[in-house]
Formats: sequence, structure tokens, C-alpha cells
Amino acid sequence: MVTAIILSIGDELVLGQTVDTNSAWLSQQLSAIGVRILSHATVPDDLRAIEEGLIAATRCNVLLVSGGLGPTEDDLTRQALAAILKVPLEINEAALRTLVGWFAELKREMPESNKIQAMFPRGTTPIPNTCGTAPGIYAELLTRGGQRSRIFIMPGVPKEMKAMFARDVLPQVRKLAGGAAIVSRALHTFGVGESTIGERLGDLMDRRRNPSVGTTVSGGVVSVRVNSYFESRERALEELEKTVAACRERLGELIYGEEEQTLAEVVAKLLRSDAVPEALRFYQPVVTTAESCTGGLLAKMLTDIPGSSAYFRQGYVTYSNESKTDLLLVPAELIARHGAVSEPVAEAMARGAQEQSGAPYALAITGIAGPDGGTPEKPVGTVCVALAHASGVAVRTFRFPGDREFVRDRSAKMALTMLRFELIGKRMPF
Amino acid sequence: MVTAIILSIGDELVLGQTVDTNSAWLSQQLSAIGVRILSHATVPDDLRAIEEGLIAATRCNVLLVSGGLGPTEDDLTRQALAAILKVPLEINEAALRTLVGWFAELKREMPESNKIQAMFPRGTTPIPNTCGTAPGIYAELLTRGGQRSRIFIMPGVPKEMKAMFARDVLPQVRKLAGGAAIVSRALHTFGVGESTIGERLGDLMDRRRNPSVGTTVSGGVVSVRVNSYFESRERALEELEKTVAACRERLGELIYGEEEQTLAEVVAKLLRSDAVPEALRFYQPVVTTAESCTGGLLAKMLTDIPGSSAYFRQGYVTYSNESKTDLLLVPAELIARHGAVSEPVAEAMARGAQEQSGAPYALAITGIAGPDGGTPEKPVGTVCVALAHASGVAVRTFRFPGDREFVRDRSAKMALTMLRFELIGKRMPF
Repeated sequence: MVTAIILSIGDELVLGQTVDTNSAWLSQQLSAIGVRILSHATVPDDLRAIEEGLIAATRCNVLLVSGGLGPTEDDLTRQALAAILKVPLEINEAALRTLVGWFAELKREMPESNKIQAMFPRGTTPIPNTCGTAPGIYAELLTRGGQRSRIFIMPGVPKEMKAMFARDVLPQVRKLAGGAAIVSRALHTFGVGESTIGERLGDLMDRRRNPSVGTTVSGGVVSVRVNSYFESRERALEELEKTVAACRERLGELIYGEEEQTLAEVVAKLLRSDAVPEALRFYQPVVTTAESCTGGLLAKMLTDIPGSSAYFRQGYVTYSNESKTDLLLVPAELIARHGAVSEPVAEAMARGAQEQSGAPYALAITGIAGPDGGTPEKPVGTVCVALAHASGVAVRTFRFPGDREFVRDRSAKMALTMLRFELIGKRMPF
Repeated sequence: MVTAIILSIGDELVLGQTVDTNSAWLSQQLSAIGVRILSHATVPDDLRAIEEGLIAATRCNVLLVSGGLGPTEDDLTRQALAAILKVPLEINEAALRTLVGWFAELKREMPESNKIQAMFPRGTTPIPNTCGTAPGIYAELLTRGGQRSRIFIMPGVPKEMKAMFARDVLPQVRKLAGGAAIVSRALHTFGVGESTIGERLGDLMDRRRNPSVGTTVSGGVVSVRVNSYFESRERALEELEKTVAACRERLGELIYGEEEQTLAEVVAKLLRSDAVPEALRFYQPVVTTAESCTGGLLAKMLTDIPGSSAYFRQGYVTYSNESKTDLLLVPAELIARHGAVSEPVAEAMARGAQEQSGAPYALAITGIAGPDGGTPEKPVGTVCVALAHASGVAVRTFRFPGDREFVRDRSAKMALTMLRFELIGKRMPF
């Protein structure tokens, strides 16, 4: 298997002023053709540091480098390469002509400092730059094991790097890699923790397995990522599907979607499908919202989706007790008796929204998002979510442990999840 | 000078499925206290690779690590640490109690697999995690030169990592670093482009200047960042304040806030202050919202702020034409004549919301968020924003060039900006 290391060069990266997106992009490109990425490294615009970075080429088949090819004093990649190859820098006449031509075309005088961009360590080859002045550099080095290691140095500007990679680097690396490929799939769940998902997946998560199965968490969404690596793309895809099917079997309805799909998107799709009983599809506004602590976030999620007017007509942001009574006809007495954050009030909000809007489904959220307002009995993060549907109201109380943003986000996602299970006709398994 | 290396661990990073933002953030934090960052490295969830990554601690004073502390089989950081320290993993009773307590509070059974998160290499110390189950790990190693090198291992989830770093890691590293400092300040503007801000700032943006002044753009907010680097923290702060004052003089009311402040926060502060005329402070719900294309986003922004019940009581999400009439009493005839996206309708929505809610200020948004619904006359991105206040209604039409998310975000921010200028009693300068 062809192995690669990715090296990014630049003070702005090491100082954290710019987030390095080149490495992730290059990784995706290499993974897709079956190259195994050993690591990423980022070093500053410092000769010694770059030399150490370049030496990594002795530990892999391909070293992809970006940055440090500009015309200014802090661009030192070519000097570092010359140092590790133990050769001098020489002017490359063809590269110089291209450079002069580039400026001529822009009708600008070439600054003397740009001349350095036509200098190459002896024995290395320029890689054309179709989007800027700095040509790339191709060099070879021997690995510790005496194998040939290939170094491709590209500009740091993402646009120039991507164009150069696609045009001249990728074809060469693909030839080295042969037909092998890694293909991936992400499956998303919401509602249970990473460890529960891990336990359900069991031996599928064995580290030695191929396709491999791993989990990541973001915004409360626990995602299962399957990576399938085989000598041919066909085989990789075939094995990927088998493992994805195995994951689906173990996780069942916990999985709400794949790849780029969001919870709201999946719910939107269900709302526009047969999942809504025929008798209810008569109603234009299929779902409505009544939000207290989430203050519009749930409606915002439902309308994130293009074409949401097909299922959403109006929503109520009832932040105060009075507005729950004014807009949703929640009896003031009910609020006084149980408190605004209570299952009876959530239920009444959902019923009120359903009646006022004429929508067959109504989601209501009332909770304590914090940082203030918590009590020992109802601490910050206590949230009641109700779903009014054709045959009644389901209501649940949750505890979301986190800050205001966390509590609001998870509350809205949980409301969407309750609606999702109602629409697929399954009991929510948590 | 104290030196640091930053190590990120995770297959998803090495495969390019997730962009590593932790390293940049940690770099910023370390730079600010005068620590020199030698390099970043990223390695996969592989025992050997993590061990090699951790060995970097022998080349620096501080190694900051994130990732690989979860409860599943692909989380191997603690095992790798134990291997390089040549010590066994042992259960830490205090950490186990905290972990069990965490689950008890959530009223959930602790899965057996989570127990690994209470295991630590002998001689290392847990670092508390205030946002999740995985404690961090503090360890020490000797550098090649025989000096003590400190290893801080934190979770990979950015939020947990940041909280742990700020609370327990930063104070220790700061003590090591002493002396020189970079101090920074960000000033935020919304409404005009980066080039306009750049022109106004003029020579303040000279690259050789210290404190330096630069601009960045994110979510339509053009921010001015001032970095002041001097041999002492006092001097750095003093010079920072001078440059910040100079920037403020040139940008005036275009600046809405500083540092972490959001537009909504600034508006919230104004709504709770004397900026609201005394006669209007009588009304409990100071502001209300009537949203069509933003579908709840504006209300969500206003209620992002803790204590928002002091100025916000209710909002209306009127996505369809019918709901504008039903809830806000916008005459159907007006919509038919001018179209739902028009200044008269925006104005009527604002007036309707004002009257229905009793709030002295009402913001209304109606527009075409796309991707569909545009016409040659009213293309996607056309948005009308109205602000009803004590003495009338202000209404403006904007064109926001971007996708659905872009148009919705900018529309809500522009509504907040109109309210901000009303509250500070100035004409909006764009």
C-alpha cells in the first residue's frame, strides 16, 4: 500500500491565524485512490523546521507539501529542499521564461524578488502552476529502506494548490497506488450516547476489521463512519455496503440519515411523503411549532430546508407565560399550578398550536435553557417536549447537560426526533 | 522561550473527513501568552502512530494533545501514553466516582465501556472535564536535554477541549511562559464590505506596524483584529488600547461590538438600557418579531441571550401568506397587490406584530431565501426588512447575494442592525 505524509508550511498556520484546510482536502483526495495517510504535520517558515518536515519523506512513499514557495523572505521551502538534498539552487531557464511571460501578460514589470521562483535545487523538476507565479517542485529521495520516495511541493494558496494537484500530482500518485481505493460512508444517530452506539456495534468496531467502523460525535449527533479499503474500487464498494448493512441491522431506527443529511432534512422528507397518513395530507401546514426556551430555533431548523412551505406555514414563539396563554390558549391556571416547564404545559402548548394552526402535527418545547432559572427540582437543562398528533399528545421530559446553546440545540433536535419516530410509526427506543 | 508542539489524534482528521480546528485555536491561545509553537502534527487512531506523536514531548516544553479519550475501541491515546511512559493503566477511583456521578445525574446507566475513561497510566493525573465524560490526562516526560516536558491530553470535541484548556491547562502553561506577550482585540462591524473598512482604516493597516491591524470576514461580520506584541504585558496592553482607539475613531458607529460580542448581544444590552425611551420601558415585551423567510432565526438570535425574557415575550413565524393574514392581520389584498416580498407587506407585518403583541418595537422580515422563488424583478436574495417603532415604520429592501443559509443569516443580522441604529439614535450609514 502506498503511504503518504502531508506537510503544510507557514507561520500563519502554526500561529493559528489560519486554519489549515489544505491537509484535509489532500487527505480526502489521497484516501479516495487508496493511499494510506500516515500523518499530517505543520511547521513554521523556518529553515530548520522545514528541513525536518521534508525529512519525513524518508518514512513514506509520497510526501505532499504545500506552502513556502512565494517570492518573499519568509518563503524558504526551496532552500530547505536544497539543503536536505545537499545540492545547490540553480536558475531554471524554462521556468524563468514562463515567469517573465506571466508578468508580461498582466502588463506588469516583474519584481526582481520573483526571480527566486525560477530557482530549483539541482536535479529537481518544476511543476507548472496554472493559477499563479510559483511553480511547484518535484523531487526524489531514498527512504530508510532504500526505496524511492517522491516529494511534490505545491503553493500554499488553496486554489493554486488544488489546481496543481489535480493537473499534475494526482495522475502520478494514482499510477503509484494502482487500483486500490478507500470508500467511506457516515451513518448518523441522535438520542443515545456514543458508548451505547459502540456497544450495539460490538465486534464491528474491532480495530483490525476492514471495512473499519468508528464513531464520532458532533452537536449531539453520534455518527458511525465506515471506511472500506481494498485493492479495487469495486471490491471496496461491495464490502462497504455489506458493513453498512451490518451497522444498520444493529442500530435499526436509531440511524436517521447518511452522509450530509441533517435531522431536519430527514423529517422534512418524511413530512412530504407517505409517512404522513393520507387523511392528514389534506392539511397544507403539516407541522407547526410552539417554542418557549428554544425561541424559534425549531422553526428555523424546519425552514432551513428549501421548499419547507410544503409542510410548514406558521410557528409560535411563546417565550413568556402570558404569550403561552394569549397565543396558544394555555390556561394561566395550568401554568400557575405546574410551572411553565412541565409536561402538562408542554402538552397544552402542543394542543393549542395544533388547534390554532390547523396543522395535524404540533411540536412544543418548554424548558430551562439557563444559565439562570434552574431549581433543585428542575435544574438548568430540564426540557419538556410534546408532540400533538392525530390520536393524542406524546410528552417527555429530558435533562440536557450543557450550556444555553447546548440545551436549546438538543431540545430542538429531540423534538425533531420525536416527530421522526411518530412519522416512521415506531416507538422511540430511549 | 517556552516551546510547544500540538498533536491531534483521529482517523477522521488524517482521512480529511474533519478539518482540524483545534490546533489553530490552541496555537492562538499559546501565542497570546508568548509560547513559541514548533509544529502541529496529526496522527490516526493507531497505537504506534500515537506513540510516535507523543514522543514529540521530548523535543519541547509543552505537548498539547487532543483526541482519542473516548470510550470506544478506536480511542487509544491513554494506552499509547502508558506505552511510552512504560507504566500500566490503573483505575483512578476518584475519576470513576465522578464518571458514575455524571451518569447518575443524567439518570442513565453507565455503560461498562465508559469505565475505561477512569483508567490512567500510573503516575499521571486526571484533568477534570466539565462538559463531558472523558477526563483529560496530565503527564510528565524528560526531554532529550533532561528537562521536564509537560503533556496535557484533552478530549477531541472542540467544546470540551476548549473548556478544559481554559480552566486547567492555560493557567499552568502561563506560569511557565512568564514575560512577553501578544495581546489582541477584535472589533466587529456589520453592513459594509471589507474593502470599505480597509479604506477607512488606511495607514493603520500598514504591515510593519506594531500593534498590527488586519481584517477578517465571517458570516458577513467584518472584524478588525489588532495584535500588540511587546516585551511586557503592560506595554502590550497600553499600545493595544491606543491602536484600538484609533480604529474606533475611524470606524465610529460601524463598530457594533468587541471580542465575543454578537450583534444580538449588543442589541439585547441596548434593549435593557436607557436606549429604550422611558415611556416605552413600561412595556414588558420590548421587541417582537414577524418572520417569513428567516422562519424563526431572528427570534432565535434574540433569545440566544440569557435573560432575554426581559425584552422578548413572543414572536411570530408567518411563513405562508395565509398566516401573515391570520396572525398579523396583513390584508390579503395587500399581499395580492404587491406580493409577499414587498415593502408594504413588510411594513404591515411589523405594524401587525406591534399591535398584536403590544411591544413598542417590531421587526419584520419577508424575502426570497431561495434556491427557488426568484424572479427577474425580485431575484433570490431580495429581502424587505421593516422596523416599527414609536413614531412610525422604517422599511428597507436589501439584496443578499448567496445561498439560502446566507440570505437568512444576513437578513436577521440586518434586522438587528436596523434596531441597533434606532436604539442608539443614529441614521444607518449604508
